[in-house]
Amino acid sequence: MSNSTHEGSVIMVILGIDPGTAISGYGVIETNSRGKLTLLGYGTIRTPAKQKMDLRLSTIYGSVQALIQEFNPECLAVEDLFFNRNVSTALTVGQARGVIILAAVHQGISVAEYTPLQVKQSVTGVGTAPKEQVGYMVRLLLGLEEIPKPDDAADALAVGICHAYNGRGWRGQV
Amino acid sequence: MSNSTHEGSVIMVILGIDPGTAISGYGVIETNSRGKLTLLGYGTIRTPAKQKMDLRLSTIYGSVQALIQEFNPECLAVEDLFFNRNVSTALTVGQARGVIILAAVHQGISVAEYTPLQVKQSVTGVGTAPKEQVGYMVRLLLGLEEIPKPDDAADALAVGICHAYNGRGWRGQV
Repeated sequence: MSNSTHEGSVIMVILGIDPGTAISGYGVIETNSRGKLTLLGYGTIRTPAKQKMDLRLSTIYGSVQALIQEFNPECLAVEDLFFNRNVSTALTVGQARGVIILAAVHQGISVAEYTPLQVKQSVTGVGTAPKEQVGYMVRLLLGLEEIPKPDDAADALAVGICHAYNGRGWRGQV
Repeated sequence: MSNSTHEGSVIMVILGIDPGTAISGYGVIETNSRGKLTLLGYGTIRTPAKQKMDLRLSTIYGSVQALIQEFNPECLAVEDLFFNRNVSTALTVGQARGVIILAAVHQGISVAEYTPLQVKQSVTGVGTAPKEQVGYMVRLLLGLEEIPKPDDAADALAVGICHAYNGRGWRGQV
């Protein structure tokens, strides 16, 4: 467990992931008992399009395991469903999402799923907020000078923040 | 490696899978250097709908690993893409497919992917054959008394047969 004391408060570490085969965004945040959010890290996991799918999925799985070992989060938060892409994209995103969730299970941490609506609602207050507004609020809520890039990383941070505000895995007092 | 001699010929064992979250079909066949096919086993991996997705994916991954350990196949064959289902289905099928492929990678066996067109073409001679014809030909090619049930298992055997006829992993002489 990744609890430690900071200003006398319980801290929960959350790993948010925006899954994809070519590029998965990740964002790691911690939250204290006062609801304060702190950025621990963010970035992307990329796999080359010319590589075979089995290798790419293995890379994604291994990278998520490495992130869990590095940051020791209590939970992996991931977006649930999307409705605005095509069937072929959904299949490949699903594959990536499957091995990402499995990496969390194999490392013994819990998995939380949120719909895009829940994520936008939590981060901006509006379920139909445009992408730019999500990035803006991620920057604001984490106290950053710039919006994290690329969008995949900002989206991963947004789902992590959503879990910080909604997670039933929360063990401190807000 | 699962080679053994039978009538003086090299034998390749193939595990075919038809992925799904609620139900994945599997079929195990062996083929000798004369192209003769033999059924080793078939069935389904089922996970309860009320279970959390992380547990369901973990069950599917573990079941495929157990099948690989039991039958020691050289290759896992799986259908590539489909176009006749909706985005939500594609995402969940993709998740199952992702952990199934990962199980093969982690067990050190190769993965072969075939489109539904290739599977139907290989098994029936016609890329647009209806489902009933696929089941009929699976029964005929494996010398079975009845068509394997459910459809998920028959479809898994069909993709396995497709690999037996097309696989570049083939190591004997046809």
